[in-house]
Amino acid sequence: MMGETADTDIIEHHVDEEMEKKRIRSHGSFMESVTESEEGHGTQSSHRLLAYSDALISIIATVMILPVAHTKVQDNEELKESLQVLLSTKIAVYLMTFIIVTVAWAAHVRLFQVIERIDDCLALLNLACMMLITFLPYTFSLMATFPDNILGILLFCACDMVLGLFQVLIVLYGFRNPFLLNEQIQVSENQVFYKHHILKVIMRVPIMCLFASIFSFIFFPLSYVILAIIIFLPYMSQTFKWCRSKAIGRVEESPDSMLFYTYHLNEPLSKERLEAFSDGVFAIVATLLILDICEDNVPDPAVVQKQYGGSLVAALQGYGPEYLAYFGSFVTVGLLWFVHHSLFLYVIKATRFMGLLNTFSLAFIGGLPLAYQLTHEFPRNSRNELEAIQISCVIIFFAGIFQLAIWLAALFFERETLHPYVRYGGREHSFMLAKLALYPCVALGTFFLTCFLSKFSASIFHLMEITVPFAFILLRLLVRGGVALLRLIFCPNRPQPRSFLEEEEEARMPFNTVVT
Amino acid sequence: MMGETADTDIIEHHVDEEMEKKRIRSHGSFMESVTESEEGHGTQSSHRLLAYSDALISIIATVMILPVAHTKVQDNEELKESLQVLLSTKIAVYLMTFIIVTVAWAAHVRLFQVIERIDDCLALLNLACMMLITFLPYTFSLMATFPDNILGILLFCACDMVLGLFQVLIVLYGFRNPFLLNEQIQVSENQVFYKHHILKVIMRVPIMCLFASIFSFIFFPLSYVILAIIIFLPYMSQTFKWCRSKAIGRVEESPDSMLFYTYHLNEPLSKERLEAFSDGVFAIVATLLILDICEDNVPDPAVVQKQYGGSLVAALQGYGPEYLAYFGSFVTVGLLWFVHHSLFLYVIKATRFMGLLNTFSLAFIGGLPLAYQLTHEFPRNSRNELEAIQISCVIIFFAGIFQLAIWLAALFFERETLHPYVRYGGREHSFMLAKLALYPCVALGTFFLTCFLSKFSASIFHLMEITVPFAFILLRLLVRGGVALLRLIFCPNRPQPRSFLEEEEEARMPFNTVVT
Repeated sequence: MMGETADTDIIEHHVDEEMEKKRIRSHGSFMESVTESEEGHGTQSSHRLLAYSDALISIIATVMILPVAHTKVQDNEELKESLQVLLSTKIAVYLMTFIIVTVAWAAHVRLFQVIERIDDCLALLNLACMMLITFLPYTFSLMATFPDNILGILLFCACDMVLGLFQVLIVLYGFRNPFLLNEQIQVSENQVFYKHHILKVIMRVPIMCLFASIFSFIFFPLSYVILAIIIFLPYMSQTFKWCRSKAIGRVEESPDSMLFYTYHLNEPLSKERLEAFSDGVFAIVATLLILDICEDNVPDPAVVQKQYGGSLVAALQGYGPEYLAYFGSFVTVGLLWFVHHSLFLYVIKATRFMGLLNTFSLAFIGGLPLAYQLTHEFPRNSRNELEAIQISCVIIFFAGIFQLAIWLAALFFERETLHPYVRYGGREHSFMLAKLALYPCVALGTFFLTCFLSKFSASIFHLMEITVPFAFILLRLLVRGGVALLRLIFCPNRPQPRSFLEEEEEARMPFNTVVT
Repeated sequence: MMGETADTDIIEHHVDEEMEKKRIRSHGSFMESVTESEEGHGTQSSHRLLAYSDALISIIATVMILPVAHTKVQDNEELKESLQVLLSTKIAVYLMTFIIVTVAWAAHVRLFQVIERIDDCLALLNLACMMLITFLPYTFSLMATFPDNILGILLFCACDMVLGLFQVLIVLYGFRNPFLLNEQIQVSENQVFYKHHILKVIMRVPIMCLFASIFSFIFFPLSYVILAIIIFLPYMSQTFKWCRSKAIGRVEESPDSMLFYTYHLNEPLSKERLEAFSDGVFAIVATLLILDICEDNVPDPAVVQKQYGGSLVAALQGYGPEYLAYFGSFVTVGLLWFVHHSLFLYVIKATRFMGLLNTFSLAFIGGLPLAYQLTHEFPRNSRNELEAIQISCVIIFFAGIFQLAIWLAALFFERETLHPYVRYGGREHSFMLAKLALYPCVALGTFFLTCFLSKFSASIFHLMEITVPFAFILLRLLVRGGVALLRLIFCPNRPQPRSFLEEEEEARMPFNTVVT
């Protein structure tokens, strides 16, 4: 009894200490989040505003997958041509929306890398921007449904122009209150130069949109060309510059090439926001199927009474494939998130090119639930089922391959972008490779197996779904075993355990040198 | 020309400096995010895992509003009784799901306040937990649709039991690898005591669920009672304890009352996760209507050709009310987010009671888009339109009132929970009050105005929608004016500008003393 009281004392003492520590810590972080500006208004850290914007934009980016997912495919008929046309139109709309919303997101990231603190006025302006961005997918689906009508393109251009206007307002407001700006610009003597450069880059889009909307009255296909130019011109010009610099040797840097608002492939991209945006997309995609299940797959009590003699279990068995599809897609999306999370844990700095690859990966992941749903909707061993399974494999393969590509792109500039552990020769290098390569390899394997053993395609696919999570759990062991095996084959003379320790020691070295 | 080159040099120099700084900073934060444990495995900061979990759970919490929103209400008929019963059932399911998922979220927060670092194994276990949580709403809608069938309750209990099992696994894994634990527990000599206490609290739920599932075979209404007890018992026992302590004077603290896993109303709740969860709910709710618009409100080309003579604009005019509803709900949800954001900027420590009030506020916000949709769906001046508008006002009122209540609850323990600026007499106190009171006041005003001037209810409502954003922009001016006016009325003798400065000076004092 005595001992217990003493224990409690210790605990309570610790509690007090901890609470004191926490209070100090949160005060510290608070001091960062609200500071007193010279003019007496409170400015705020933009962290939460950006997190909310990322959540909104990631929902909007994936929304156009819903019309694709809800296209009804009949059970017992082959995929008709008309249906295929309809589906491919909708998929095209989804992909275009995804890319355009991601471009808008990238512009937003760029803007708030310049303006690092906010106040109430900026928060409200940002909400107005968000509302315009959420409206973009709708204009896009109008364009796709009525390709000959100029209303869709006019609405799109109008949204873009107003969006540009709000961004200009935000920039002007930021430069009028310099304490809101990025430190680097704040201390710079060239604030006016920065301001003009940023405004010039931002104004490019609304001006092009103005031209596009004017041309839409004269010869509307030209408007589509202009819109395509808006998106791809910066990248094309960058590629062109890069090619020229490789061809004719090193060219001098133009005054344009600053840290902000260039379209350099290794211009830094906020890693935090890249993660937040990806998390949003992963979360929406993982729950897409359960949203449908909750809404549509509760049987009608009258039907259960009449058709199944009141047996709910029998009635629910009809929905079996939907549940399977849900679990399959949740697990796959969850594990792809896990791979993404593991990779970005070791990324120090994200670049625009990595962001681009990430976008492609996410665009494929958005199609996953749909593909999984299709795999379970057709009768066993039909040509459609085989096709659906193979499409799923292809989607998983590309989603995984682009994640692998992010790492490879990071390895290209590894000194700047990666933690020493996952660089060439780092101690987690082979483990990371295995993690990133697991899904592409499995998907490729499943694809070819289903080609040869088309009769067992469904069983192979289900087996894949079940084994992959366990493969991830056992991956570290598998990699260790694999590395040991390779070593045994290629250099059997060196004693096993020592070489392991040695390797770890070697890998640890550069890490220490970086830290100290 | 010379000057330009020099400028560029300066810029580039700054760029280099900044990049160096960034690299160091990100290395610093990286050192926090991956550390080397004694046993050689890399442990990771749980930040992103928790952000992803928050996103998933917030989607799931709001999902059951979709069946409510998609209940078709006919244009020209009065709300029939049967429809009202159906609607109220669905609303009840939504509210119950929201509460239960929030309880699961709170348990998750509690768990990861103990386990502060993760590794791959914990990340995968957490994904399994998430999958079980996403399945809860479906079991709940089964329960509501088939109240006499025990399948729903059995599925629910099964989910809960497996969830509890995974949580136990996570705790056991955490205590086997103490470097994953909260610092306070890590250094504590009572690890075993903590472990047993935490396991005891976690095991309570699955054991009760086991009883509930056994009783469901015997007398199923009892199972519902048990489930209700699981949720409310901790709060009831806390309230009872509190009442007793007030009635018979101060009782000694029981050994149970530690920082973790008590149900004290002022047990700390991670502020970061509260914000992340709220952001997720706000983001989903704000985009609910645009999701529907993108999917359903693109007219069929054939219909446009036939009915509207090819005029797309005429065809889209029919959807006018939907667009209005979307803009109205986006703006209202956005501004409520803005108020929430402003409030939590000044919250230093969140407590469980504030979390509870926040949940109620969010539950009302979830119903907002639906209410807005209804306001525009009925013919002008019908009884239904009036009802819908008044329901919207009531929802806005309660959403706002609960936000205000969060602040009032925080003021109750202001030394611990609030920044000095917004405490009694702080310089932002009246401004915060105005921000939080704006929506409830406007909603209440609109409600009573529509009672008296029922003929103009729609116009009043639209006017409210349009003026509120401007009111927020001008709020600071309005508050200054109001305070000056009050001062002029009650103490006209003191000179105006000086008293202002004085007040600011006074308000600044406690802030400085806290900081230094």
